[in-house]
Amino acid sequence: MRALLALAALAISTPALAADGETTATQLVRRANTGATVAWDMVSELTTRFGPRPAGSASERAAARWAAAKLKEYGFRNVAVHDFAITGWTRGQESVAILLPHPQPLAATALGGSPATPGGAIEGEVVSFASLEALKLAAPGSLAGKIALVDLAMPRGGTGFGYGYVGRVRAFGPSEAATRGAIGFLMRSVGTDSHRLPHTGSTRYIDGKVPIPSFALSVPDADQIARLEALGERVRVRLSSTASYQPGAITSYVTGDIPGSGAADEIVLLGAHLDSWDLGTGAIDDGAGVAIITAAAKLIGEQKRHPRRTIRIVFYGAEEVTQPDSADVSGRAYRDPRMAAMAKHVLAMESDEGADPIVALAVPDHLKGSAFEAAALRILGPLAIVPAREPPGRGGVDIAPLVDAGVPAFVLQQSASRYFDYHHTADDTLDKIDRTSLDQNVAAWAGLIWLAADGDTDFRPRGTAK
Amino acid sequence: MRALLALAALAISTPALAADGETTATQLVRRANTGATVAWDMVSELTTRFGPRPAGSASERAAARWAAAKLKEYGFRNVAVHDFAITGWTRGQESVAILLPHPQPLAATALGGSPATPGGAIEGEVVSFASLEALKLAAPGSLAGKIALVDLAMPRGGTGFGYGYVGRVRAFGPSEAATRGAIGFLMRSVGTDSHRLPHTGSTRYIDGKVPIPSFALSVPDADQIARLEALGERVRVRLSSTASYQPGAITSYVTGDIPGSGAADEIVLLGAHLDSWDLGTGAIDDGAGVAIITAAAKLIGEQKRHPRRTIRIVFYGAEEVTQPDSADVSGRAYRDPRMAAMAKHVLAMESDEGADPIVALAVPDHLKGSAFEAAALRILGPLAIVPAREPPGRGGVDIAPLVDAGVPAFVLQQSASRYFDYHHTADDTLDKIDRTSLDQNVAAWAGLIWLAADGDTDFRPRGTAK
Repeated sequence: MRALLALAALAISTPALAADGETTATQLVRRANTGATVAWDMVSELTTRFGPRPAGSASERAAARWAAAKLKEYGFRNVAVHDFAITGWTRGQESVAILLPHPQPLAATALGGSPATPGGAIEGEVVSFASLEALKLAAPGSLAGKIALVDLAMPRGGTGFGYGYVGRVRAFGPSEAATRGAIGFLMRSVGTDSHRLPHTGSTRYIDGKVPIPSFALSVPDADQIARLEALGERVRVRLSSTASYQPGAITSYVTGDIPGSGAADEIVLLGAHLDSWDLGTGAIDDGAGVAIITAAAKLIGEQKRHPRRTIRIVFYGAEEVTQPDSADVSGRAYRDPRMAAMAKHVLAMESDEGADPIVALAVPDHLKGSAFEAAALRILGPLAIVPAREPPGRGGVDIAPLVDAGVPAFVLQQSASRYFDYHHTADDTLDKIDRTSLDQNVAAWAGLIWLAADGDTDFRPRGTAK
Repeated sequence: MRALLALAALAISTPALAADGETTATQLVRRANTGATVAWDMVSELTTRFGPRPAGSASERAAARWAAAKLKEYGFRNVAVHDFAITGWTRGQESVAILLPHPQPLAATALGGSPATPGGAIEGEVVSFASLEALKLAAPGSLAGKIALVDLAMPRGGTGFGYGYVGRVRAFGPSEAATRGAIGFLMRSVGTDSHRLPHTGSTRYIDGKVPIPSFALSVPDADQIARLEALGERVRVRLSSTASYQPGAITSYVTGDIPGSGAADEIVLLGAHLDSWDLGTGAIDDGAGVAIITAAAKLIGEQKRHPRRTIRIVFYGAEEVTQPDSADVSGRAYRDPRMAAMAKHVLAMESDEGADPIVALAVPDHLKGSAFEAAALRILGPLAIVPAREPPGRGGVDIAPLVDAGVPAFVLQQSASRYFDYHHTADDTLDKIDRTSLDQNVAAWAGLIWLAADGDTDFRPRGTAK
């Protein structure tokens, strides 16, 4: 209601200033923000029919076929499913338990890429560290036969600012522990909740592999071990996992276009990923993103006149198992065959942080204060979106290879105060999405993308920000 | 702070009215409510050291020995551990998954007492019912080879008023489904949350057994099946459980006294249970109750003069597997050997609904409006406790056999707006207890029990309510 009133005020006070593109963008914002979108139906059907969609699984492939059919039904052109091969990783049976001082089970789950426990299970005494840096101070060999535990908590932050810092434990902890002789690795989940649902996520392959079986404990279980230690107890645990690798597993990405009306060879790319972790149904990560970009592009495609530039949807595959600095599998599968067309990719954006409200727009430094940014903020202002304090960086895991190849990226930064309660857990399910917030996302994307696609602004640094 | 101010006001405005017992009771309330209790330490150590404490398990026995030592350390007399035998039930490996329309795992857990799936696993089509009554309308044989699902949601209620109604699905659903030919039973969890953590709990033994494998689905998983049905799909599932029974398993209850100073043979009994479900660590169910009654009685025992009557702590065993109308195992193990002493049990109370604030005092109808109730409400008023609308009934599972034998019961009714988010799930862990609320409980128990134990009011109907 407040947003509607603000929109009404905008319409009254600024008509003389608004270019034609802005008027259409504002109309799209209004339509989406009052719920006239397909986003909820799309994320509901995707997560309900297929459940978890691990990279390289039959479920991911079935979801990709369904998503392609959905794009055609929604009027997208050039819809295609593109297969590519990865090394898959499949969780098996797994359990973690305290043996001493008194036996009790723990809620824990293997990190993605973590090997099976040799000989069925391993047992050892827990040696706890307060941070990754503390672990790195341990002497070589000092963890021989032990299970290392890094117990670093993630703060609840407005836009998830702790994820990068705390996430390093998951990325580098297993190899740092193994280097010092540890036979297994435990960590407090990278999460802000206090439920018995551990947060998985890929750990970094070093020299092509994860050296030791590695698990995330749920937050209450990390607390439990910390309290036992505070009671003066030495804690002995048993770890078991039958995880396995599948070389040559087939994954895919899906593309579909809203062809441009004036400069159809220029591409504004909108990305999200279809794969999910195996524990939940991938509603906030990233069914929401798939639904948001599709609903926004569909609204634009339904306009009497398409924008000048082509809007391309890419549903990436295998995002969750993409290794950040070695392969960039998901994004490179799209980019590498299209290197010659990079100059025609005028902008890339990614939606991959759930469905909570968008709160800020990040543009590259050279566009700060530009006429384009000002117009974008006029359109997004009624949705309570302000300029971001950080630049967009590489834009997201999937579009990072495009950014590396010179494609400009914007980020519509989302509120993450709840996101890391559910991220990478079994709790990532449809009920965690708020419909009103989901449509606020669609509204922001529709308005901003219309503006970017219907104009002729060159977003590259050498270009002229009009 | 508000409670302290109210206490100060009470002290100023009513000193002339307050009897000696009331003065002491008010002092106890004030002390406990400012955090001078052992409750947090006790529930923390109990749940941390021993984790889950299923009825008849080694963990439950170890916890009983520890609890007895704790009572001695706290100054209780006549401390004893009393063993008795039950038929134990142990969860095994279990899994529930959708096979059609697309395979996906479900978060589900076997109901307590539910048998293993024959031949490893069973498969069948789901037939859904909106209530137990709808299931009962199904014709004999109409569920042959099917899996019945009762999908009845529990409302979030101030004092858990929906538990009795919705809980009937868990009690009677499996046998009603089996009678009509079903090979398995599913139900929406009896819970108010939306996490992937199913709520277990005992189902009713009919003719000495649970006829078919029976499971609770987490709330998001029950929603998932409902959405698939709304999409027009027929849902086929696979159920697997290796649960087992242990005839002759040993459980125990623990007793300890604060001996009375004037009428030591008269007993005010305070009960809670040491056993827990296997999924969580039994913090709110019922480590909190154990800690609350112990901390309250310890505060009373530390007074220069003990109250006239003896205060007896009973930590019951096997409460969770007690069958409500057939055996009353936990409470009868205490009562049956003491039938001759029932007349000397002047009052029984039980703490078994978590650690959220006490909001109301329930006394038997014949004590409504009595001088005792008025005095109790004067003492409890500063804690925001009002008269309950319902009578105390049988007082709770553990003390019900005492009530059946004529012992009066009061109930200090707790707020249950969060309790059924965690009840009988893996999420029943220490972090769900709020320390301030825990001490409010101790304060109410200490004040009320001093008043009941130091006076000579006969709480039985034939007695004189002074």
